[in-house]
Amino acid sequence: MRYALLAPGKRLRPALVLMAGEACRKTLDSQLRDQLTPGAVAVEMIHAYSLIHDDLPAMDDDDLRRGRPTVHIKFDEATAILAGDALQAEAFRHLATRVSDPVKAAAAMGVLAEAASANALVGGQADDLAAEKGSPDRTLEHLESIHRRKTGALFAAALDLGAVLSGADESSRQTLAQYAADLGLAFQVVDDLLDHTADEADLGKRVGKDADRGKLTYPGLIGLDGARKKAHELVESAKCRASVFGTAGWRLTWLADYVLERTH
Amino acid sequence: MRYALLAPGKRLRPALVLMAGEACRKTLDSQLRDQLTPGAVAVEMIHAYSLIHDDLPAMDDDDLRRGRPTVHIKFDEATAILAGDALQAEAFRHLATRVSDPVKAAAAMGVLAEAASANALVGGQADDLAAEKGSPDRTLEHLESIHRRKTGALFAAALDLGAVLSGADESSRQTLAQYAADLGLAFQVVDDLLDHTADEADLGKRVGKDADRGKLTYPGLIGLDGARKKAHELVESAKCRASVFGTAGWRLTWLADYVLERTH
Repeated sequence: MRYALLAPGKRLRPALVLMAGEACRKTLDSQLRDQLTPGAVAVEMIHAYSLIHDDLPAMDDDDLRRGRPTVHIKFDEATAILAGDALQAEAFRHLATRVSDPVKAAAAMGVLAEAASANALVGGQADDLAAEKGSPDRTLEHLESIHRRKTGALFAAALDLGAVLSGADESSRQTLAQYAADLGLAFQVVDDLLDHTADEADLGKRVGKDADRGKLTYPGLIGLDGARKKAHELVESAKCRASVFGTAGWRLTWLADYVLERTH
Repeated sequence: MRYALLAPGKRLRPALVLMAGEACRKTLDSQLRDQLTPGAVAVEMIHAYSLIHDDLPAMDDDDLRRGRPTVHIKFDEATAILAGDALQAEAFRHLATRVSDPVKAAAAMGVLAEAASANALVGGQADDLAAEKGSPDRTLEHLESIHRRKTGALFAAALDLGAVLSGADESSRQTLAQYAADLGLAFQVVDDLLDHTADEADLGKRVGKDADRGKLTYPGLIGLDGARKKAHELVESAKCRASVFGTAGWRLTWLADYVLERTH
C-alpha cells in the first residue's frame, strides 16, 4: 500500500482538493488546509488503488508505472490485489476518522463512493478493457464516455471534495463540476498524445503500448492535430469556468495550462 | 456484480444487522427494518466482493462457490477484479445514498470501512495467504488473529451496523462486539470442521482443499475433537452475551446454535 501510495507522482487529485477549497473560500489558510487534507489523502488512495488494479496482468498488464516496477511485479499478484482492495477501504476509513463534522464526512464519503463506483471509475475501466478487446463501439462519444468515468469522475470528485469540505454553496460545486469535466477530458487527450509521441524515459511507462493493443485513443480517432486542437479547446473552456472564482481560482487556471504543457 | 451478490447464500451478515437492531430496540417493526436495510445490503456487498477476490487464481484459486462457477470462471479475471472493486465502492455508495441521517450514515460508513480495511478483512486474508505459503507462525494465536480479522471483523461490523442504525447506546454496542467475537470464531472453527468432514455436494465447494494446501486450520492444530469442543464453548459464550438483551435477543441465541449445527 505504501509503495503504491507514496510512489513519485504529480498528486494532481490531492492538489485539486486544495485548489477547489481555496477557490470556494477565497483563501487557503492552515485551518482550511487541515479541513481539506483528509479529502486530499482519500482521493489519492482511490487513485493509487485503481492504478494497482489497472496494471494487473488480467487488466492492462503493465510492468512499469511512474518509472518503477508495478506492484504485482515488485511484490506479487495476490499482494497487488489486496493492496488495492485495502487502499480503497482506507480511503473511506480515512474520511470517517479524520473529518470531524459528520455531515461533511457523510457527504465526502458519498462523493468519493459515487466516483469509485461502477457508474464511474470501475465502469469506465470495464468499458476501456472491452474496447481494447474489440468492442464494436469505436466512436468519439464512446471514448469520451469511457474517459468521463475512468478519469474525469475522480477529478470531479477531488474538486467536489474540496467544495464539500470547505462548506461551499451549490453554485460553486456546479462550476467546479463543469471545470472538472473539461479538465478531465483535456488530461486524457494529452495522455493519449503523450503515449503516441513522448519518450519512454520522460513518461516513466511504456510508450506506444495503447496503439499496439488497438486501444481507443483520441489520436487514433481524430488524428494528432485533431487531438491537439481538442486539448486546446477543452483547456480554454476549463479556464473560462475557473474565471468565475476570480483571483481565488488562479491555481485552477494555472493547472489547466499545466495539463496542456506537461510532458510527464 | 449481480451474479456474485445475488448468488444463493445464507445472508448471515445481513441477518446479523437486523438481529442486532431488533435486540437493541426490543422489537423489529417495518420502520426499523427500513432503517437497517441499507446496512444489511452494504455488508453483504463487502462480503460478496471479498469472496470474488478471494477466489481469484492469484489468491485461493477456487472455481466453485456456493455450488456455482466462481466469477472469474463464469466471466473472466478482469471482470472478477472489477466486479469486486465496484461492489466495495457500492457498499459505501449505498450507505451514503440510503441512510438519510448523515450522523448515522457517517458512523455506519466508518464501521464498514474499518472492517474492510487492512486492519481487518484484507489484513486477515493477506496473513491467511502467507500462512498457506509456509509462514513460520503456525500457532493457535496466529490462526485466531487471522480469523478475527478475516471473518470476525465483518460479523462484528454487521452487528455494529445494526446497533448504529437503530441508535443503540454504547453498552449495547459493546455487548454485540463480544457476541460477534465469539460467533465469528465459532463460525470459522465450524467452517474448518466442515472442510474436513462434509460432503462436497452439501457444502457447494471443494472439500479437503484447505488441508491439501497446508492451510492453517483448527482441526489441523488442535484435532477434530479439540475443534468440536472449541466450537461448543464459543457458542455457549456467545449465547451468554446474547442473554443480556433478554427475549429481544432470541434470534442471536438461535443463530449461535445454528452456526454449530449447520452443514452448509
